[in-house]
Amino acid sequence: MEGSPRGKLMIYTRVVIVGGGFGGLNCAKTLKKANLDVLLIDKKNHHLFQPLLYQVASAALSPADIATPLREIFADQKNTTVIMGTVDQVDKKNRKLLLQNGDEVPYDYLVIGTGARHSYFGNDQWEPLAPGLKTVVDALKIRERILISFEKAERTDSIQEAERHLNFVIIGGGPTGVEMAGAIAEIAHKTLFKNFRRINPEKSKIYLVEGAPRVLPPFPEKLSERARKDLEKMGVRVITNELVTNITEEGVQVGDDFIEAGNVIWAAGNIASPLLKTLDIPLDRQGRAMVEPDLSIPDHPEIFVIGDAACSIGKDGKPLPAVAPTAIQQGRYIGKLIRRQIPKKKRRPFKYFDKGGIATIGKNKAVGFFKAIHFKGIFAWLIWGFIHIFYLVNYRSQFGVMLDWTFHYLTGLRGARLIHKSIKERPDKK
Amino acid sequence: MEGSPRGKLMIYTRVVIVGGGFGGLNCAKTLKKANLDVLLIDKKNHHLFQPLLYQVASAALSPADIATPLREIFADQKNTTVIMGTVDQVDKKNRKLLLQNGDEVPYDYLVIGTGARHSYFGNDQWEPLAPGLKTVVDALKIRERILISFEKAERTDSIQEAERHLNFVIIGGGPTGVEMAGAIAEIAHKTLFKNFRRINPEKSKIYLVEGAPRVLPPFPEKLSERARKDLEKMGVRVITNELVTNITEEGVQVGDDFIEAGNVIWAAGNIASPLLKTLDIPLDRQGRAMVEPDLSIPDHPEIFVIGDAACSIGKDGKPLPAVAPTAIQQGRYIGKLIRRQIPKKKRRPFKYFDKGGIATIGKNKAVGFFKAIHFKGIFAWLIWGFIHIFYLVNYRSQFGVMLDWTFHYLTGLRGARLIHKSIKERPDKK
Repeated sequence: MEGSPRGKLMIYTRVVIVGGGFGGLNCAKTLKKANLDVLLIDKKNHHLFQPLLYQVASAALSPADIATPLREIFADQKNTTVIMGTVDQVDKKNRKLLLQNGDEVPYDYLVIGTGARHSYFGNDQWEPLAPGLKTVVDALKIRERILISFEKAERTDSIQEAERHLNFVIIGGGPTGVEMAGAIAEIAHKTLFKNFRRINPEKSKIYLVEGAPRVLPPFPEKLSERARKDLEKMGVRVITNELVTNITEEGVQVGDDFIEAGNVIWAAGNIASPLLKTLDIPLDRQGRAMVEPDLSIPDHPEIFVIGDAACSIGKDGKPLPAVAPTAIQQGRYIGKLIRRQIPKKKRRPFKYFDKGGIATIGKNKAVGFFKAIHFKGIFAWLIWGFIHIFYLVNYRSQFGVMLDWTFHYLTGLRGARLIHKSIKERPDKK
Repeated sequence: MEGSPRGKLMIYTRVVIVGGGFGGLNCAKTLKKANLDVLLIDKKNHHLFQPLLYQVASAALSPADIATPLREIFADQKNTTVIMGTVDQVDKKNRKLLLQNGDEVPYDYLVIGTGARHSYFGNDQWEPLAPGLKTVVDALKIRERILISFEKAERTDSIQEAERHLNFVIIGGGPTGVEMAGAIAEIAHKTLFKNFRRINPEKSKIYLVEGAPRVLPPFPEKLSERARKDLEKMGVRVITNELVTNITEEGVQVGDDFIEAGNVIWAAGNIASPLLKTLDIPLDRQGRAMVEPDLSIPDHPEIFVIGDAACSIGKDGKPLPAVAPTAIQQGRYIGKLIRRQIPKKKRRPFKYFDKGGIATIGKNKAVGFFKAIHFKGIFAWLIWGFIHIFYLVNYRSQFGVMLDWTFHYLTGLRGARLIHKSIKERPDKK
């Protein structure tokens, strides 16, 4: 790219941001009016509003509702260029990135916000059996699997086979797992109720498995209890204090029990992006970069790691939570540092403002907290809705999502129940 | 399925409809209150509003806007069961269907509305280079290719390579080809205008190639001329009277000229579903069943073929056009025949009511006709919009599409500009 006959001469300080998630996006936006050359590189062409991704997986929203082209977001930000590409390696010494297509991209400041993928704790063979939920493709795959399961159950003549197709296991009782379990319970017990002739989707069994003693571990204990009760009211079987020891095509081994299930969804563990390994610095157990108080890496005040890719220690001595507000605040903090080009010694450490947490369970059901205040029920559910609508990046998506939600609220239907591929045909086991 | 322990005893006349397109859907709906057992089999789980599919391919609409789950449509129609499956063969003698998974489905009446796929006139090797537009997957594939082309053009250092990525060839000047060419011109010359830094999407060249002497061959000549002018105003190069003789990775051979292009879209030929071959009856050149005046097949008054799968001769002695109104009217006609179980001898022949045609070219630009009346410009464009909104099956989609269109009209943006996969990385040719 350097010396390209078509590229402009780079006379400004070059800031390269890898990853267009909450961290990278907010960092780039903070640099809006700076006299800098900003280059944003992402594997995808869009920013994804990940907190609502489970709604794509559960057929309530379309991908375009929660994803916005990065180019569109930065169309009017003249100092910023967006390219779609994969960064393979950071060359700290020569201050440049190596892209998968062979391009080299030099930088003066580098911000890494490449996020995390799901981790199977060394059991990578589970991945095809229990897909996780990080990208639009993941969500569409899960949506397709869920919908096809009901189709298969309707078609098979074997009662046992039908039951297996109607059983769901969600592994991991954090917000994603809780929200996914609630959404599947709604699909099975409400949305699809009248849609089938031979099967009764209400007979579907949904299991939520969490290794810790309670669901939503980072939430206050009372709210975890409330979430559990709400889930159980919706027909979800909540299993805590049990570990998944095996996943097969037939189902999931949970402690001493084997649960037959045709659909398993992984919402349990994360591992940070492999790009961090090329930094050659200490990483934590989840593969995240151990960053300094100014979010830079040791000996390289010009390289920052933010969001789910970083392990940043809060004032309580614990790592900051891997949630959107952390990434957003870090992105803005770094943006300001770079804009003013503050030298390492003068940088004030990053301060995290804890916005609490909120998780929705189903219609009119949610739990949330902010400092010592707890919310639950319809009030929490409304707050959840407003927060998510408010943060959706572009206005068009806000209207679209509100429309979809209003429709869904009034009718109980889910608009995006599409199976794009043909059903995989093989003679049924009889 | 027969004698299944879980299936109900079939004491009613069994009507099996293969294909949930315009024909099959309307046939099943007409049978709503009949004392019959209706089984609708489709490869997909949704009815697709195909006339708007090009808007998914051109990133203006999301798949869920124009596709509705078949189960949802028939949720309240008690006599109708929907299954997702692929029919491999019709056994006329034993009056049953053989499904790909080995199931056998008996019928008393059989309605085949399996539509058509695109045909490459014996050059099947062109398919990966020039995808056609029939299913949601097709549309998403084309959308991805178009968007990735602009990304690649932005990234490459070679001017020649960039130009190739910015050139588009649409083969086939019927309504789909015309609408697709107009939509790509809008994307390239309007939507993406501010989105790129290194390339100028306005430099994109869009070619529409038609073998006949004019675009929109079934339309009145004056309207073809108007469509051509509208397209040319939008920057589309219209080539008529020329045949495509080869397609390679580098571009398209059109007559004596080779057009370098990274994106080729096929909107030229159709071939009816291969299921028709198993009927063992005369087919026309496009593989369509030659049906009798009551749309049944020779010697089998209980088997009907409708829509794009049928070649039905109109009163002018020519085959009826392969458009949605034909399929809709045929589906309803067959539905009434079956509802009253009219014996072959007493059936009045199917009468086609010609609704004319309409094609949109771009914002405020369309051409249409109904009998001797011609429409063009903004008036035709508004009529086009109303017709399409009106016919969209479910109310929710109508709102969604209107919203997307209003947004698009006011802002010129396209909401669904998503690339789900990573860009295919290979060292750029330099």
